[in-house]
Amino acid sequence: MAVYTDITDAELEAFLAGYDLGQPLVFKGIAEGVENSNFLLETTKGRYFLTVYERRVQAEDLPFFLGLMAWLGPHGFPSAAPIADRAGRLLNPMCGKPAAIVEFMPGLSVRRPSASHCREAGGGLAWLHLAGQGYGGHRANDLGERSWSALFLGLGDAAEALKPGLRQTIAADLATIERAWPKGLPAAVIHADFFPDNVFFRDGKFAAAIDFYFACDDLLAYDLAIGLNAWCFEADGTFNVTSAQAFVAGYEQRRPLSADERAALPILAWGAAMRFFLTRLHDWGATPEGALVKRKDPMEYERKLAVHRAAQAGGGLLLFGEAR
Amino acid sequence: MAVYTDITDAELEAFLAGYDLGQPLVFKGIAEGVENSNFLLETTKGRYFLTVYERRVQAEDLPFFLGLMAWLGPHGFPSAAPIADRAGRLLNPMCGKPAAIVEFMPGLSVRRPSASHCREAGGGLAWLHLAGQGYGGHRANDLGERSWSALFLGLGDAAEALKPGLRQTIAADLATIERAWPKGLPAAVIHADFFPDNVFFRDGKFAAAIDFYFACDDLLAYDLAIGLNAWCFEADGTFNVTSAQAFVAGYEQRRPLSADERAALPILAWGAAMRFFLTRLHDWGATPEGALVKRKDPMEYERKLAVHRAAQAGGGLLLFGEAR
Repeated sequence: MAVYTDITDAELEAFLAGYDLGQPLVFKGIAEGVENSNFLLETTKGRYFLTVYERRVQAEDLPFFLGLMAWLGPHGFPSAAPIADRAGRLLNPMCGKPAAIVEFMPGLSVRRPSASHCREAGGGLAWLHLAGQGYGGHRANDLGERSWSALFLGLGDAAEALKPGLRQTIAADLATIERAWPKGLPAAVIHADFFPDNVFFRDGKFAAAIDFYFACDDLLAYDLAIGLNAWCFEADGTFNVTSAQAFVAGYEQRRPLSADERAALPILAWGAAMRFFLTRLHDWGATPEGALVKRKDPMEYERKLAVHRAAQAGGGLLLFGEAR
Repeated sequence: MAVYTDITDAELEAFLAGYDLGQPLVFKGIAEGVENSNFLLETTKGRYFLTVYERRVQAEDLPFFLGLMAWLGPHGFPSAAPIADRAGRLLNPMCGKPAAIVEFMPGLSVRRPSASHCREAGGGLAWLHLAGQGYGGHRANDLGERSWSALFLGLGDAAEALKPGLRQTIAADLATIERAWPKGLPAAVIHADFFPDNVFFRDGKFAAAIDFYFACDDLLAYDLAIGLNAWCFEADGTFNVTSAQAFVAGYEQRRPLSADERAALPILAWGAAMRFFLTRLHDWGATPEGALVKRKDPMEYERKLAVHRAAQAGGGLLLFGEAR
């Protein structure tokens, strides 16, 4: 839950004065999103989401994110378009921080995705990849494969404290992943945080994706690998092959993978698990107890790393077994 | 901000199965309300609020609160009516706690009420008092005047820690208030928490009141006194006579006060300040640092007590000077 910025009725009125959105009727802080403050805003013109960007989002990245959101809708992908003010600006200051208004996007996320949800989500991700092609913005992935060894430099003690021996294990993983990391695969803009809470369904069908604040340029198949980790593990830590095959099959219905992409998926998924393990490990130590943000357990991703490590040593992940 | 209960899509679906509200389209935790967990719920049938009642609300009081909310709408007062399930129940279990669905009530609260807002709010409160007459439910005010001395018994040290000498001052206040407390004034169901965040405006006009979870039987003029404290003090602690006169005048336009009620208002307002001082002082000590609930400063009400103490010793509060 996250509402870091407290907005008064007077501050809201001053902010809205620059927009052609009519009078505010409803304004409620939403307990959603960890990085930013989010508000439901209803005016005489419609329903919107107002987001105030907090410390973790780099202000210089916001035009890339908002530009992508503005690009996707007209290119057929269901996502919330930002609303420009009368001067055409997508960003304006609110309480000294950058803020934006976007369309309200109805839909429900699922907590425990079924194989059918995974198929729909995979299809939605491929749809996003296709719709994003041609977007002119660029943003390097500052949490991409090249950053992981440096990120781990300061986290060895934290890893060891989490589980004795983990420092060595992660260091060995990093070396293996670096050696095996694929080159030359198709790259474009990716979501990079395509987790179940960022995907909306309606009547069991993919309805929209939200939260593009990790979007960047990287391998499309790496985005798929992030999704496999986020959607296809059971609560007990086991990898659900049925869900994973459905996720990949749903993806391939819209965007078939090349042979090289298919071959690279297991190492990409191992790397994707490493990315979330490292940032969670970092946040675990950096977030004070009792903070308003719920810390995400790095051990969840430590277990996923173990699954990928074992799969790499053994028979692989069986990602392509589904009858299509 | 408050969302204590985490509801999954599966739990929501099971809960809604008992209602005739169609399929859920939107479900978002709202950072609003300190005592309960609140969710915006949109279905194919309409928009609602789902509230899960947490520890501070006594389950046995809920039928009184929900019954009042169900009474007010048909008796002309704008408030959110509870929605019954197919069996006619207003309460159902969610995650092991009682929960209810009420109508969604649009409107914006104001942070810094103008005199015009105060007049509207006063009128809204009188409207509520008139609409509530005839409601058959009864609930004693467990935070009423009779409870204050007992409540202060355990808080002397906390008062002294807040400000040296405050233990004696409060004890003397309590003795004075008890002696002067009016008898025989009109009593009925009151809101008892008619603060600006519980009142919605639209186009500058009173639109609705929400949050009836302190409602009880008590003196109607005491409810007005609570409102005067909540609406008519400036941020610097001074009493805004213009706002107070507007609040009372707005009230009297719908429900004129008797001479006895008018005469009692200053002592009622002193007592109302005592009630919120004492509960805030209690919560100040009882709420752990870093808890998800924002603690309300008891010193705000210590300053209001001082204003009422001085007014009682001097020329009174000048509540009735406005040209009407």
